[in-house]
Amino acid sequence: MTAEILCVGTELLLGNIVNTNATFLAKELSNLGIFTYYHTVVGDNPQRLMEVLKTALSRSDIVVMTGGLGPTYDDLTKETVAKYFELCLKLCEPALKRMECLFKSMHRQMSENNKKQAMMPEGATVLENENGTAPGLIIEKDSKTVIMMPGPPREMKPMFINKALPYLSKKSDIILVSKNINFFGIGESALAELLNDIMVNAKNPTVAPYAKDGEVEIRVTASAKDKDSALKMIAPVIDEIKKRAGRYIYGIDVFTLQNALVAVLKEKRLKIAVAESCTGGLLSKRITEIPGSSKVFDFSACTYSNEMKIKILGVKKETIEKYGAVSDKTVTEMSKGIRKISGADIGLSVTGIAGPSGGTGKRPVGLVYIAVESDVSSEVKEFRLSRGYGDERELIRYLASSNALYMALKTAEKF
Amino acid sequence: MTAEILCVGTELLLGNIVNTNATFLAKELSNLGIFTYYHTVVGDNPQRLMEVLKTALSRSDIVVMTGGLGPTYDDLTKETVAKYFELCLKLCEPALKRMECLFKSMHRQMSENNKKQAMMPEGATVLENENGTAPGLIIEKDSKTVIMMPGPPREMKPMFINKALPYLSKKSDIILVSKNINFFGIGESALAELLNDIMVNAKNPTVAPYAKDGEVEIRVTASAKDKDSALKMIAPVIDEIKKRAGRYIYGIDVFTLQNALVAVLKEKRLKIAVAESCTGGLLSKRITEIPGSSKVFDFSACTYSNEMKIKILGVKKETIEKYGAVSDKTVTEMSKGIRKISGADIGLSVTGIAGPSGGTGKRPVGLVYIAVESDVSSEVKEFRLSRGYGDERELIRYLASSNALYMALKTAEKF
Repeated sequence: MTAEILCVGTELLLGNIVNTNATFLAKELSNLGIFTYYHTVVGDNPQRLMEVLKTALSRSDIVVMTGGLGPTYDDLTKETVAKYFELCLKLCEPALKRMECLFKSMHRQMSENNKKQAMMPEGATVLENENGTAPGLIIEKDSKTVIMMPGPPREMKPMFINKALPYLSKKSDIILVSKNINFFGIGESALAELLNDIMVNAKNPTVAPYAKDGEVEIRVTASAKDKDSALKMIAPVIDEIKKRAGRYIYGIDVFTLQNALVAVLKEKRLKIAVAESCTGGLLSKRITEIPGSSKVFDFSACTYSNEMKIKILGVKKETIEKYGAVSDKTVTEMSKGIRKISGADIGLSVTGIAGPSGGTGKRPVGLVYIAVESDVSSEVKEFRLSRGYGDERELIRYLASSNALYMALKTAEKF
Repeated sequence: MTAEILCVGTELLLGNIVNTNATFLAKELSNLGIFTYYHTVVGDNPQRLMEVLKTALSRSDIVVMTGGLGPTYDDLTKETVAKYFELCLKLCEPALKRMECLFKSMHRQMSENNKKQAMMPEGATVLENENGTAPGLIIEKDSKTVIMMPGPPREMKPMFINKALPYLSKKSDIILVSKNINFFGIGESALAELLNDIMVNAKNPTVAPYAKDGEVEIRVTASAKDKDSALKMIAPVIDEIKKRAGRYIYGIDVFTLQNALVAVLKEKRLKIAVAESCTGGLLSKRITEIPGSSKVFDFSACTYSNEMKIKILGVKKETIEKYGAVSDKTVTEMSKGIRKISGADIGLSVTGIAGPSGGTGKRPVGLVYIAVESDVSSEVKEFRLSRGYGDERELIRYLASSNALYMALKTAEKF
C-alpha cells in the first residue's frame, strides 16, 4: 500500500513556515508499514490543488492532506476533494454542535464563516478536532482514500494519532519497528566505513545512518507481523554494530545526550551543576528540558564576564590574567567553583569563543574548553569547533554544549 | 517567471529530516520576484525522479533541485536530468582538481566513487561547493532552467546565495521588498480583526500575518522595479498599521524579542542580569545568542532548587515557605537579588511550573511569575501559559522566556 502527503498552504509554498507536518506524517506512515513515495506542497489555489490531487490519486492508494480546512474563502481542500469524487457538501449537525460549544466555552461569537467548517461531503468520516475549530475528514471511494486534516501542527498531530492512525492501521497487515542507536564522537562517513557492508547488504532489517549536528544515529528497522518478531530480527544486527563501533555508542533509543545524562544521574542519584560562558545558558537549558531534571540539577551560573567568573565561581584573577578566560586553567577553576557552591557531585564548565568576533590567530573562533570535576575524576579538554562556514555562532554553542553533555555522561557512568 | 522546488532524498521522504531546504529556497525565490507554485519531495529512485522532473518541467520555467549529488550509487539527480535533456556526462577537470585538493587538505584518500561527482553533463555551468565535495550545476535548455545543488543545508545555502542567486537575479526584472512588523501581546486572530480590510484589499503591497509561538509578524511586501520604489509603496501601509495596532508593535525588521532587547540595551548602555527557575537557562540562552550581547550581559543564574534561590539570590527562606517558590513575592526577591549580585541596571527573573508534573489545582502547570527590577521601575506579573495540550513543557518555557524578554524591553525603553 502506498501513500503520499499533500500539504496545502501558501505560507508553506512561500517558505514562511517549515513543513514539519510532512516530516511527522512521513514518519508515522512509515511506522505503519505504508510506503510514502511523494510529498507535494501547493498553495491555496483551486486549479493547481485539483491538478496535484489528480496526480496523487493516480499513483497512490492513500493521499494524506493537511491545510485548507479553515473558515475563510481561500480554504478549499474539502471543496476540491468533494468535486473530484463528485460528492455534495451537506451540513453535519454534530460537527456544528461541537463548534457552537467550543465558541461558547471561549466566550466568542461564532461567525457565519465558521459554519462552512461544518459542511461535509456525503459519506465522509468526520474526525473530531480536539484542539481547534476545523474538523478533519476521511473519504474512501473507488479504492482510494483521502484523509484531510487541519494545517496547524497542534491540531493535526493529535488528530492523526488519535483518529486517523487507528483507521489506517486496520489497512496494513505488517508493522515497522525501529531501534535507534545513538553515537557521539564519530562522523557519519567514518561510521559508514566501519559499518558499510552491514548497511549495504541489509534488507530486512534495514540499517540507515542519520547525521544530526555533531551526532550520528543508526536506525535499524524491521518489518514483521508483530513487534516481538521484529525485535528478534533487530537484535543480532545491533549486536554486530556494537562489536564494531560500540565505543562510540552512548545509548539506544535515548535520542539525545541530555536524556542519556539525566537518566544516568537519576539512576545513580547524582547531582550536576553547570558553569557556562560561551554557551550562555544553552547547556543548562538542554539539561532542564528533560522532565524531572530537577531531581539531578539545582544550579547553573552563566558567567559571561571575567568579573563574574571571579566573583561567583571563585576563579582566580591571576589565572584569567595569565592564561585568559578561554583556557584550560580557567575552565578547570570554573568547574571546581560551581561544584563547591552547589554541593553537586559533578561540576561541569564551558568557556570558549563562539564568534563571530573575539577570535585571534592563536585563539580562533570555535576554540572551546570544557572541564568536568567530581570525586571519581577530573578532566579538561580542548576543542576546535569551527567548521569555517559563515554564521556559525549557534553551531559552535550547540557543539560545545553537546561535548559538555557527553563528557559529563562519561563521568557519571564511572560512579 | 515560475519556479518549483524538487528535493531528492529518501531521508526526507521517510520523515527522518525536516525539509528546511524547501523553506529556504522558497523564501529566496520569492525575494527575487520568482513565483513558486509547487514543492515536491521524491526518494532516490530513478523512475519516480524522472517522472516528477517531467511534470515539473512541463509546468514551471525553473526547477531548483537539492540532493542526490553524492558519490554513491543511489545518487542520481545529475544522471536523471542529463538523460531528460539527452546530454552526455563528461569528466570536468577543474571540478576533479578541486576535489583532489580538498581531500588532500583533509588528509583523506579520495575514492573512485568521488570521481563520479566530477562528471558533468555537456554545457552545464558548474557551481563550486565551498563546503563539501559535491559541486552543483545549472543546465539551461529549451527555455527551461534546472539548478541542482547538494542536499546538506550547510553546502546548499551558501552555494545558492553565492552562485545560483546572482545567476537567477539576471532573469527577473522586478524585485520583491518586504518589511516585517513584529507584534507581541496580541493573538493572530485579534490582530487580523483590527487589520482585516487592509489585509483583504492589499494587492501591491501585500499584507500577510504570520504567527509564531506567542508572537505575530505582519509582512508588507511590495513588488517594484527597484528597492526605493518598493519602500515608498510600503511606507503608508505601515503608517496605517501603526495607527491601528501600534501599541502591540515591538519593532520593525527586528525579527526577535532578544534582538530588540539587546539593541535597546546597547543603545542606552544598560546591562541586564537574569535569574531563572522554570526556564532553566533558555532566557539567558536567547539573550546570548545575539552577537555582541556580552556588551549588555554579564551574568545569569539558574536557581532550580529553593536552596539555591536562597543561597545565591538571597531570597528569604520565609518568603518561599509562606508564598511558595512560584509566587510574585519570590520572583520579586529573585530580580532584586540578581541585580544586586551583578550590579546590572536591570534585574529580570522568572519562576513557574513548566510541567508535565508539579502542578496543583491552585498552582497549575503553566503558572509563571516574571519580575523586572530597575531604578526606573519595578514590575511583577502573573501568567497562565498552559494551552491545555499534551506535551507543552518546552512551549511553556518558551512563552515564559518571551514574556520576560518583552517586559525587560519595555523597562529598558523607559531609561
